[in-house]
Amino acid sequence: MGTLPAGLVERELQAVEVLIAESLRSEEPLLTEIAQYVVGAGGKRVRPLLTLLAFRAVGGKDPQPAVRIAAALELLHSATLLHDDINDRGVTRRGRLAAFRKYGALNALVTGDFLFVKAFAIGGKFAPEIVDLTAAVATSLAEGEILQRRLNNDVQISPMQYLDVVRRKTAMPLSLGARLGAYLGGARDSRLEHLARYGLNVGIAFQIMDDILDVVGDEAVLGKRVGSDVWEGNVTLPAIHALNDGATIDPALLARLLRKKRKTDAEVRRALSMIQDSGAVEKARADAGRYASEAKGALDTFPTGTHRDALLALADFVVSRQR
Amino acid sequence: MGTLPAGLVERELQAVEVLIAESLRSEEPLLTEIAQYVVGAGGKRVRPLLTLLAFRAVGGKDPQPAVRIAAALELLHSATLLHDDINDRGVTRRGRLAAFRKYGALNALVTGDFLFVKAFAIGGKFAPEIVDLTAAVATSLAEGEILQRRLNNDVQISPMQYLDVVRRKTAMPLSLGARLGAYLGGARDSRLEHLARYGLNVGIAFQIMDDILDVVGDEAVLGKRVGSDVWEGNVTLPAIHALNDGATIDPALLARLLRKKRKTDAEVRRALSMIQDSGAVEKARADAGRYASEAKGALDTFPTGTHRDALLALADFVVSRQR
Repeated sequence: MGTLPAGLVERELQAVEVLIAESLRSEEPLLTEIAQYVVGAGGKRVRPLLTLLAFRAVGGKDPQPAVRIAAALELLHSATLLHDDINDRGVTRRGRLAAFRKYGALNALVTGDFLFVKAFAIGGKFAPEIVDLTAAVATSLAEGEILQRRLNNDVQISPMQYLDVVRRKTAMPLSLGARLGAYLGGARDSRLEHLARYGLNVGIAFQIMDDILDVVGDEAVLGKRVGSDVWEGNVTLPAIHALNDGATIDPALLARLLRKKRKTDAEVRRALSMIQDSGAVEKARADAGRYASEAKGALDTFPTGTHRDALLALADFVVSRQR
Repeated sequence: MGTLPAGLVERELQAVEVLIAESLRSEEPLLTEIAQYVVGAGGKRVRPLLTLLAFRAVGGKDPQPAVRIAAALELLHSATLLHDDINDRGVTRRGRLAAFRKYGALNALVTGDFLFVKAFAIGGKFAPEIVDLTAAVATSLAEGEILQRRLNNDVQISPMQYLDVVRRKTAMPLSLGARLGAYLGGARDSRLEHLARYGLNVGIAFQIMDDILDVVGDEAVLGKRVGSDVWEGNVTLPAIHALNDGATIDPALLARLLRKKRKTDAEVRRALSMIQDSGAVEKARADAGRYASEAKGALDTFPTGTHRDALLALADFVVSRQR
C-alpha cells in the first residue's frame, strides 16, 4: 500500500496550492468555478511532489522557483485533463462527474484554454532553456493524444506503441518535472539525467497502474468507473497482454469485443473478465514493478538521506496504490 | 474598398510565414495537416501586419523580435479560432469547411492546444513584462468567450456588453500586437499608448465590420455563410441597433426570432431582412467608421511618413473591406 511521502515538502506543496488558487481567479465566475472543480478535485499532486522532492534531493535552497514551476506544470496537467476528458468522454473523474458533463463540453474547452494561459503566465517567466523543454514536452503531449486517437480500437497495437503513448502523455511530463526540479535546485551534473530517468520510469509505472486499476480497481476507492478504457476502445497494456499471451482465454473473441465501436455493458464486463482471467493483470503489474525498480535504480548514486528515501517511497507508492 | 497596405513590410510578413510554417511541423502528420489547414487558410494576416507596421512606425530596426512576436500572436489567434469554431459550430471559415467539421471536433481541439503550445514556445522567450501583457490578454480572451456564451440568445444585451465581448475577443489582442510592435521597436514613450489605442480602436472597428458582413456580406466574396450570428444566437451590434431603434420594423418580432434556440432557415432569413430593413446596418457602419477615425486620431502626433500612412490606410481598409 503505502502513502505519498509528502511530509518533507509540505510547506512547498502548500505554496503550490496558494499559487494555483491565485491563478484561478477570473472576472468570469464560471471560469473560476470550473477550474477549481478540476484543479481542486483532490488530485494526488504526484507531479508537484516529484518536482519538489527532486529540487530538495539535489540540495536546492530557496524553493520559490521550484514552487512556481510545479504550479505551472500542474496547471498544464489540469488543462490537458479537462480537454482529455472531453476527448475520452469520461463520465467520472476523481469520484465526481467529469467537468464537461457538469458544465458542458464548450465551457470545459474554454476553461482548459484558460488554464493553459495561466500555466504560460508562470512558465513563460523562466529561462529560455526551460521554456524550450516545457514546450517540447507539451508538444509531445498533444502528439500523444493524436497518436492515442489514431490507435483507438486497434487490437493490433504493440507494447511499443502503447509505451509511445504513455511516454508522451504521462512519462515525459513527469520526467520534465523531476528534471526542472533538479535544475532549479542547482544540479548541472549527471544528477539531472538521473532524476529525469527516475521521473520517466515513475511516469511509465504510474500509467501502467492507472490502466491496471481501470481493469481491476475498486470503484469506491478509485472514485471512477472501471472499464472506461474498454468502453472507449483504448487498448492498454493489460488488454495487450491478454490478446498476445492469454493462454487461458480466447484472444480472437476478446479482440472482437474490444474492437466493437459500440459495446453493451455486458460486452464490457465480459472483456474485463477475460482480461482478468488471462493473467494479463499480473503481467502488467510485473511490468509496472520493473519500471518502478528502474526508477529507483536511477537514484543509486545519490547520497542516502531523507529526500532520496522519499523518492524511493514515491516509486513504491506509484505501483502499490489503489487509486 | 482599399487593399491591405502590406507592401512596406512584405519581407517581415514573409519571415512571419516561415516561422509559423516551422512551428507547425509535428511527428503526427494529422496535427500538421489540421494546423496548416487553419493557419494557412488565406487569413488576412491583419494582426502580423499591425504589429510590424507599429514596429517600423516607431523606427524599429532589427525586425527579428517583432517577427517572432507577430508569429506567436498569430498562432495564438489560430488556436482560439479553432476552439471558437467548435464553440460556435461555424460550418465554413475563409471559404472552406471549418476544421472541426472536416477533421472532427476532438482532433480540432487537440490541434488548438498544439497551436497554444507553439505560441508559448515563441512567446515565452520574451521579457517578463511581455509575457505578463500577453497572458493578461489571453486570459481576457478566454473570459470574453465565456461572457459571449453567457450572453447567447440574450436580446436584452446592451451595446456596452457587446463592446465588452469585442474588446476581450478582438480589440485587446490587436491592441497588444500594436503595443508590442512599438515596444520592440524601441518606443518607451507616449507612442506606446498611442499605438495601443490605435490597435484597440482598429480592433473594435474590425469586429463591427465582421458582424455587419455577417448580415449583408456577399457569401461568394466572404467565403462563408452569412447569418451565422443569427443562427447561433450571437446578438451583435446590427441586431442590437435593430432591436433598440428600428422604427420601421417590429422589434418584438425580431426579438422572438433571435431568441429562438432552434431556428428554421426561413426564420434566419426573416431576421436578417428585418435587421437590414431597420437601418441598423448603416448605424453600425457609422459606429465602425467612428472607431476607425478614433484609431487614426491616435496617430495625430506621429511624424508623417510611409508607415503612418500605411497605418491610416489599414484603418480605412478595416471598415471598407468586403471580406
